Amino acid sequence: MTALIFPETVNPHGTLFAGAGLAMMSKAAFLVASRRARRTVVMAGSEKIDFRTPVLPGEALELTAVVTRIGRSSMSVEVTGEAETLTTGARHLAMTGRFEMVAVDENGRPTPIAIPKEEKTQ
Amino acid sequence: MTALIFPETVNPHGTLFAGAGLAMMSKAAFLVASRRARRTVVMAGSEKIDFRTPVLPGEALELTAVVTRIGRSSMSVEVTGEAETLTTGARHLAMTGRFEMVAVDENGRPTPIAIPKEEKTQ
Amino acid sequence: MTALIFPETVNPHGTLFAGAGLAMMSKAAFLVASRRARRTVVMAGSEKIDFRTPVLPGEALELTAVVTRIGRSSMSVEVTGEAETLTTGARHLAMTGRFEMVAVDENGRPTPIAIPKEEKTQ
Amino acid sequence: MTALIFPETVNPHGTLFAGAGLAMMSKAAFLVASRRARRTVVMAGSEKIDFRTPVLPGEALELTAVVTRIGRSSMSVEVTGEAETLTTGARHLAMTGRFEMVAVDENGRPTPIAIPKEEKTQ
Amino acid sequence: MTALIFPETVNPHGTLFAGAGLAMMSKAAFLVASRRARRTVVMAGSEKIDFRTPVLPGEALELTAVVTRIGRSSMSVEVTGEAETLTTGARHLAMTGRFEMVAVDENGRPTPIAIPKEEKTQ
Amino acid sequence: MTALIFPETVNPHGTLFAGAGLAMMSKAAFLVASRRARRTVVMAGSEKIDFRTPVLPGEALELTAVVTRIGRSSMSVEVTGEAETLTTGARHLAMTGRFEMVAVDENGRPTPIAIPKEEKTQ
Repeated sequence: MTALIFPETVNPHGTLFAGAGLAMMSKAAFLVASRRARRTVVMAGSEKIDFRTPVLPGEALELTAVVTRIGRSSMSVEVTGEAETLTTGARHLAMTGRFEMVAVDENGRPTPIAIPKEEKTQ
Repeated sequence: MTALIFPETVNPHGTLFAGAGLAMMSKAAFLVASRRARRTVVMAGSEKIDFRTPVLPGEALELTAVVTRIGRSSMSVEVTGEAETLTTGARHLAMTGRFEMVAVDENGRPTPIAIPKEEKTQ
Repeated sequence: MTALIFPETVNPHGTLFAGAGLAMMSKAAFLVASRRARRTVVMAGSEKIDFRTPVLPGEALELTAVVTRIGRSSMSVEVTGEAETLTTGARHLAMTGRFEMVAVDENGRPTPIAIPKEEKTQ
Repeated sequence: MTALIFPETVNPHGTLFAGAGLAMMSKAAFLVASRRARRTVVMAGSEKIDFRTPVLPGEALELTAVVTRIGRSSMSVEVTGEAETLTTGARHLAMTGRFEMVAVDENGRPTPIAIPKEEKTQ
Repeated sequence: MTALIFPETVNPHGTLFAGAGLAMMSKAAFLVASRRARRTVVMAGSEKIDFRTPVLPGEALELTAVVTRIGRSSMSVEVTGEAETLTTGARHLAMTGRFEMVAVDENGRPTPIAIPKEEKTQ
Repeated sequence: MTALIFPETVNPHGTLFAGAGLAMMSKAAFLVASRRARRTVVMAGSEKIDFRTPVLPGEALELTAVVTRIGRSSMSVEVTGEAETLTTGARHLAMTGRFEMVAVDENGRPTPIAIPKEEKTQ
């Protein structure tokens, strides 16, 4: 999942607004958790999120999300955001975070994730 | 800081998209930290964020942000979001989070926060 | 209700787009009228709105809304917007306006506002 | 100037959010005043604005803006918004408003509008 | 249909983001096709679209859409976008495109367009 | 590049607004062309774009963009969009398009793309 930073998400100081960065990381976490669980998932919360270096206009933000833990109905997703200056290819680690996602049924209650045996050890 | 949840920030399941909640909490943290430091502040990251109960369309989300720690150039801000059904006044705690904010100079480098002595003990 | 002015709502001349200011005042009026009536409210219109001084990027816009008149099913709400330079705390009155709000039933027709006796004299 | 109402500008009750209607009327006023003055214009405020009938999703909102008064550096612009059900062509008057616009120089100060003599009598 | 280009739709190089131009042309095509067919219409695709000259902030983009072909259930719509510098009135052709629109029934299937005989020869 | 379709980009008929699909395809084309040329690129236009099947809320849209032709200063980029129902993994081809991108210098004039010899034959 790659996003281009356009001026609309820039703060008054000319860098990516942290709130927009959080929203993009959330989408990446939501996507990868939905694919793993094949259920509706909601975000229960996040653990430590770090903004390492600012993202500038004209940079692309490339987000990588990985499911790192699968419980009965919850998952942990680690998201990494790397910024790339499009005209040079130079890259820097911009942000990292861990999100807790929960699979829910149609009433919004936690529901077990059906996982093939071999994946559970992951 | 109070926000009305309009459909534009709702996810496919009809509740407030978590990413939008994170963005709103960020703005509240940014606002209160800027006022305390009277400097440009950026978000260094967040500690544990919890989404307790979903926010529904037609509810107002009222965010309260408090500076709970002041260091040399950094601050911790705790943000609480309460949702209110506008037609009844019923309220529920929707989300809580802690954000780390840093005062920066015009080059984006951490800069000391000038704090009156009596506030430092807080 | 406090809003930060981010570049996305800025006009080509670098100040807050008046239309965005109107939208923010509307939300504040909607919120306070909904809370007073505890009914669905819609905006019937506005009386004189004044943009006194421009709001600049990096300023926070703090909106205060007060119900100044309650009729059978309508209310008048006065909204004041003060802009604050976050790095100094300097403030200026940016905009004022009066909005007429109407409580409606599920068919969108005006419906009486149930008001405790002592409030009616306000 | 014609706008389609998409769900993103709809309020929780399924009709066009009044704030979005105000923003659209502002743009129409800004456009026609800029064309008449051929100067940068800003909105000084608005006189009575009426929301006559709600605008529904799937309707197009057609805005007509007319300069009705030209002063030394200010103009009055009347804006009318008609909603049209696209599948039938049925139309209803949705909103009207009057906006006061001021021509400004590069420092944001009022500046005279150069008007051909024959137009001044309009 | 006239649109003002505000900074929110500008790319990092300070001109109108092409994607925003495409979205605006789509809306114009959707509007004129809906009016001609008086049915729900969807976009089947587009033929050659040309971005001739960049649109700059502060310019108004005026879009003209014309139905140029009517088939059994499909229509071709040609859209032209002219940019106007509001402070001078200078205009330049900014973009042109042709869009294929299809009238659909409530299940999303193509449905015949009822056209008066005299219009069919157009 | 993967995007989640949230209600904000949905048209009144509950499917992805074609204009939003065009904007997303444009971003993908812009990204891949910028990476290939390592220059500022602008969109010159598009060839045939097809919307094959509608994209529904709750689906993820996965865009794949490939540079298929490199000229002196222009490139052709083919973009394919596949929609995926997140709860089942079912996929369908939703849209395809070809975009012409041009590398430009700081004055916005076409500039040669420096390409390693072995890539030119591609």
